[in-house]
Amino acid sequence: MTLKSNIMKHQLIIVGGGPAGYTAAEAAGAAGLSVLLIEKNNIGGVCLNEGCIPTKTLLYSAKIHDNAKHASKYAVQTSDVSFDLPKMVARKNKVVRKLVLGIKNKLSACNVTTLIGEAIIVDKNTVCVDDKLYQCDNLLLCTGSETVIPPINGIEDVDFWTHRDALDAKELPSSLTIIGGGVIGMEFASYFNSLGTKVTVIEMMDEILTGMDRELSAYLRQEYAKRGVQFYLESKVTSLMQNEEGIHVGYEKDETTSSISSEKLLICVGRRPVMNDNGIKQLHLEQTARGHIVVNEQMQSSLSGVYVCGDLTGHSLLAHTAVREAEVAVHAILGKEDKMSYLAIPGVVYTNPEFAGVGQTEETLQSKGIAYSTVNIPMAYSGRFVAENEGVNGYCKLHISDDNRILGAHVLGNPASEIITLAGMAIECQMTVADFRKIVVPHPTVGEIFREAL
Amino acid sequence: MTLKSNIMKHQLIIVGGGPAGYTAAEAAGAAGLSVLLIEKNNIGGVCLNEGCIPTKTLLYSAKIHDNAKHASKYAVQTSDVSFDLPKMVARKNKVVRKLVLGIKNKLSACNVTTLIGEAIIVDKNTVCVDDKLYQCDNLLLCTGSETVIPPINGIEDVDFWTHRDALDAKELPSSLTIIGGGVIGMEFASYFNSLGTKVTVIEMMDEILTGMDRELSAYLRQEYAKRGVQFYLESKVTSLMQNEEGIHVGYEKDETTSSISSEKLLICVGRRPVMNDNGIKQLHLEQTARGHIVVNEQMQSSLSGVYVCGDLTGHSLLAHTAVREAEVAVHAILGKEDKMSYLAIPGVVYTNPEFAGVGQTEETLQSKGIAYSTVNIPMAYSGRFVAENEGVNGYCKLHISDDNRILGAHVLGNPASEIITLAGMAIECQMTVADFRKIVVPHPTVGEIFREAL
Repeated sequence: MTLKSNIMKHQLIIVGGGPAGYTAAEAAGAAGLSVLLIEKNNIGGVCLNEGCIPTKTLLYSAKIHDNAKHASKYAVQTSDVSFDLPKMVARKNKVVRKLVLGIKNKLSACNVTTLIGEAIIVDKNTVCVDDKLYQCDNLLLCTGSETVIPPINGIEDVDFWTHRDALDAKELPSSLTIIGGGVIGMEFASYFNSLGTKVTVIEMMDEILTGMDRELSAYLRQEYAKRGVQFYLESKVTSLMQNEEGIHVGYEKDETTSSISSEKLLICVGRRPVMNDNGIKQLHLEQTARGHIVVNEQMQSSLSGVYVCGDLTGHSLLAHTAVREAEVAVHAILGKEDKMSYLAIPGVVYTNPEFAGVGQTEETLQSKGIAYSTVNIPMAYSGRFVAENEGVNGYCKLHISDDNRILGAHVLGNPASEIITLAGMAIECQMTVADFRKIVVPHPTVGEIFREAL
Repeated sequence: MTLKSNIMKHQLIIVGGGPAGYTAAEAAGAAGLSVLLIEKNNIGGVCLNEGCIPTKTLLYSAKIHDNAKHASKYAVQTSDVSFDLPKMVARKNKVVRKLVLGIKNKLSACNVTTLIGEAIIVDKNTVCVDDKLYQCDNLLLCTGSETVIPPINGIEDVDFWTHRDALDAKELPSSLTIIGGGVIGMEFASYFNSLGTKVTVIEMMDEILTGMDRELSAYLRQEYAKRGVQFYLESKVTSLMQNEEGIHVGYEKDETTSSISSEKLLICVGRRPVMNDNGIKQLHLEQTARGHIVVNEQMQSSLSGVYVCGDLTGHSLLAHTAVREAEVAVHAILGKEDKMSYLAIPGVVYTNPEFAGVGQTEETLQSKGIAYSTVNIPMAYSGRFVAENEGVNGYCKLHISDDNRILGAHVLGNPASEIITLAGMAIECQMTVADFRKIVVPHPTVGEIFREAL
């Protein structure tokens, strides 16, 4: 009897229990495959435990706080509006626990074996966890991404926050500097600004929210500037220093060096794939110039039987992309026809107002040389938006092709996150404007804005 | 020179300036037709002036009030939450004025001539307003519907409200009886219950919200019952009486007669087409057994050149149906190919939580003998729903055909109104479940519930 007979064998081993991992595990398990899901921290991954869900839960408390403070706009009076930050964080943790439990239950119901531990990829059919070997026919890698800590001068002597610390802050900082004006930076800027912290955002690029519609990003920035958030664009952080008075961020702008001081510092400048210490590198999968793993339309890597989903592929670093990729990968393993499409991946910034986009931006259209025309209307064209957004502006921008198809949609205004999928469906289904107009949208809803724009 | 040369001639005369009328006028005007739009009261019709928009504006104030009162669920403290009803009503009127102005501006921009006055249809090419005659090539009738006042014993001696009075109430009644548990009745029940009125709903049928999903209607009723609304189902109002103590509503249930007393009474038992005193009857258009006008897929009536849209057709008495019908009618007049589809008309009840449905219900499927299976999941399958709905339940129910297409979708939970259109698009486009699952829905959103259910 050889050692090999002791090795557990599964039809599919999944490394990483985030949205890609648990979605794939549920789908493959439900289809009857024997599935082993390995997660090193918590089922649900960054998204559920320290990303999408916790931020949105806290942001909703902040929104309830904002709405109560400004209720008089709607003829409702309140007084003594305050919040209990430890309770807010406790509720956030409760929501996360409830959702993690839901996923665990689903995994059990789908006969998925779950293992908490650090996986080391030995070869394309073998994974090692805690010195035990596990074998598989197919391997799905979805280890996700981790926070990039930039090598700024002095950073090792500064007590900075990552998004994880910011989520669990139980004492409100009087002031907060955020390095990075991307989605994570802006959501935390919104959260702490709502609660009363003096917030400063430093961004290296010439506009916040790279990749989103530039014009609407600027509107959103101006809106937060009115609420007291300070923005430094085209500003490169060059040094960090901490003393009794707080944290001092040195930055260069227009060849001049200045400094911003605040009680706390949050760093969110980007995320990088988790593939260095887990053996993924040693599989020598084909990579892009930027270090992401190359996959085909079935999410298979350059190695047969090895599938890769989520942030490792570098396509969008979004949970919903990972979820769809996972479904495609499982379909490929099951021999079902399917392929991944990146035509209509919505991006959402959960500020208040929300900001969402799907499909092409003006920048991508121009760089690809695609002819288009643009419609840009105020959200006030929606009666419901007017009813529910006293004194608030918003915009809906659509890019239309020469043959009258929707190429891109960008919405600044609540609930952009929920309605953007209508445009996403039109883009994914390559509907013409005339076809899209045939969809009956209930009145009054904010979703009617797309009909108004067309 | 004959008298006829003095008659103003238009390519299209539209009678009724509600959603059907203004939509058709804008579309036809923008296409270059000479259009006369005749409205007897206010541009915008019932929907904009005394229906959809004013109710949603008031309901939003009530929601802000509710959210402030129950903010502690989200770790936000408030005290002395109250409201100013006259201010609430004033804001509602401001919103309506703003939106009416928007429509007037659009009509002008589309070169539509607008006339305020009572139109009398003389023949299919001639309309009379204030003794002046106007001629047209095409006539579009969209005079809408009006409140039915049922011939209840004693009604003439009782000072009752219709929806119009309820919208403008500047003093909160201590108690209110609502006859009719349909959409209008339930929205007002929600509004007055939120503000603190003791509300009673009397409904003749065995469930509220006829036409909506029965099971979810029952959940919604139970939810409002918990909040103190009293429901009397299968109860037929037989008498009304008013004295110093209030209004007394006599009703029969299980062959027993009882009585409910309250300060105010709101009657909303239904609406009937406006066609009796405006000459429409005299055109002798073909009618359904229930007295609505029969139209073909291009919204043309039995008389060539006479188009009918909106409540007169009796299809759904919903503004968004009227809007789409109006577009189809104008396309027919312009010779553009198009046809009306009633496959996916969403219906929404703007209670809190919202309740929305689109496509088939179990009742319609069973009565048509269509084979189907049903999925019904709690809204808690959506992470965002959990984050934003502390202690609130909700459900998402989908009916699927034997060949895996979506037949109907029913959602109880916010923001059902905005997400129901996703299911509507799937139904209208006759997408399979597999196709619908290919749509990438941003995470976390409540809209993801459809993916979870499939």
